[in-house]
Amino acid sequence: MPPPRPRPTEDELIARYFAPLAGEGGLALKDDAALLKPLAVHELVLTVDALVAGVHFFPDDPPEAIAVKALGVNVSDLAAKGASPAGYLLALALPDDWSEAWLAAFTAGLGKAAQAFACPLLGGDTVRAGGALSRSITAVGQVPAGRMVRRTTAQAGDRICVTGTIGDATLGLALRQSTDAPPWASSLTGEEQNDLLDRYLRPRPRLALAPVLREYAHAAMDVSDGLAGDLAKMMRASGASAVVDMQRVPLSPAARAALAGDSRLMDRLVTGGDDYEILCTLPETRITAFLRTSAAAGVPATVIGTVVEGGGLPVFRSEGRERRFESGSFSHF
Amino acid sequence: MPPPRPRPTEDELIARYFAPLAGEGGLALKDDAALLKPLAVHELVLTVDALVAGVHFFPDDPPEAIAVKALGVNVSDLAAKGASPAGYLLALALPDDWSEAWLAAFTAGLGKAAQAFACPLLGGDTVRAGGALSRSITAVGQVPAGRMVRRTTAQAGDRICVTGTIGDATLGLALRQSTDAPPWASSLTGEEQNDLLDRYLRPRPRLALAPVLREYAHAAMDVSDGLAGDLAKMMRASGASAVVDMQRVPLSPAARAALAGDSRLMDRLVTGGDDYEILCTLPETRITAFLRTSAAAGVPATVIGTVVEGGGLPVFRSEGRERRFESGSFSHF
Repeated sequence: MPPPRPRPTEDELIARYFAPLAGEGGLALKDDAALLKPLAVHELVLTVDALVAGVHFFPDDPPEAIAVKALGVNVSDLAAKGASPAGYLLALALPDDWSEAWLAAFTAGLGKAAQAFACPLLGGDTVRAGGALSRSITAVGQVPAGRMVRRTTAQAGDRICVTGTIGDATLGLALRQSTDAPPWASSLTGEEQNDLLDRYLRPRPRLALAPVLREYAHAAMDVSDGLAGDLAKMMRASGASAVVDMQRVPLSPAARAALAGDSRLMDRLVTGGDDYEILCTLPETRITAFLRTSAAAGVPATVIGTVVEGGGLPVFRSEGRERRFESGSFSHF
Repeated sequence: MPPPRPRPTEDELIARYFAPLAGEGGLALKDDAALLKPLAVHELVLTVDALVAGVHFFPDDPPEAIAVKALGVNVSDLAAKGASPAGYLLALALPDDWSEAWLAAFTAGLGKAAQAFACPLLGGDTVRAGGALSRSITAVGQVPAGRMVRRTTAQAGDRICVTGTIGDATLGLALRQSTDAPPWASSLTGEEQNDLLDRYLRPRPRLALAPVLREYAHAAMDVSDGLAGDLAKMMRASGASAVVDMQRVPLSPAARAALAGDSRLMDRLVTGGDDYEILCTLPETRITAFLRTSAAAGVPATVIGTVVEGGGLPVFRSEGRERRFESGSFSHF
């Protein structure tokens, strides 16, 4: 048996795994800092997210999926603000038992995700963790000056839209967590179960919607902590409330099948996290054009309710009943 | 005895401790992202550093000092690149036993440091750590277009300068680490010992030097991993080597007193980390003007050597002997 190879130094790690991911502004990771030349008449949108093994993901998730998620959750924030990605910086804390095979798979996944999101590596720092693996990513985007889409500017009378389908990731998480499949899983095909798992593991940020949001939306945010909680957050920030038609919340065929197997799941679908869809509000008069334009951009969107005056938690209406989700927001803290 | 107060939620933490630190671009931390309006005809300089309790600092360091260091190490990178701070993003992972008193002291320290460095909070993420406390900071700076000072552009014939004094922080670390004072400590007054500790705990980024570097330096970087290792890094990146006169390396009175007590300390002074001074190279013809201008900016600088053609490790000359520091670089990894 050959002796184990010595572990690479930080400089070797950078040269072997990170430098190949660097975009132009990353200066081949040979300097102390990255250099970003902003587009003329643009502003910068910046967002940071930290993810910790055992808290935000499973340590044995595929390393490539961990990478996609790390970058995806940030890029999703940029898209919701109407911004195009310019690049990201990564702080990676490796636990004592890290392996080079894991790092190779992680950085390969990161490279693919960065290419898919047009968001190259600008810089990073790799350190020894004081426990579990963790990483934080700061993503930088650009938006035409004055056009960032805020969370705080929903207006009474606006219609509320959401992209894609809601609740798939939380069902995927339930499948990922359980050693015994949950009862509703028997209503799903193997392919549907895989689709749900994939929604949990690999967020697909709605980048194509960014220019559409700039054109149409009064307010937008990404749905990361559950539709109910995030809508409540947006309404609170906008000094308004909302009425949602629960029946209009868009569900995937897999989620519908699961719901058919257990009707109590609906609350979970609208409160569970990790959707990484976009929630936005816009005037009634522009709904038709918005839905057409977003569909043309490859992003299906659905009207689910209306912004109303006043405060208090959003009301979710379903078959004559009204629900309010007190602690609807899924907190990673 | 009153019952313990319940711990605040993440939203309460943000409102109570972080929102008051937010600069204009932080949008009061009420949106998903920060918005930075770049100065006209400027470019952005970005840098990230991760620090982990037990690896990069002592968990029982004063929380205010941990904050100063967290932000200071990043701002030091910006200064070395000739950039002015625009703001920072913080990812904070709190261990299970965090206390609100600790967080209050940490954020108070962060607020003071941010004010001193003119570098306001733009955004952040607070999560539960999977072990020790850790935080990473991404700092954003601005530099007139085309004027970022690189690490890779030192030229043979340039003189090498360093700001302030070298080695104080590594002596401070030794004092911090030891239960019994090291032998050389008896050569120091209590005040000198405190000064060294303070250099280790509270980096003072050389922000005032940024415009001077843009005007005069061919290449620059901050000294964070030891003078010898960082100089080797700069020379390697520039395809050159260097000759340093060890006797010219600037030392504080405290370091001189320690050295008088133990002459073998000199190697440690030039290889130990955490100086956060600036290393730069510039043409011989501009040295006088540079030294005058940097002194006028309140930053003493000293010529310590010369960039020479060829590769290989920099040579440190002292009393007829030549030294090369093989593993001079202090690695936090």
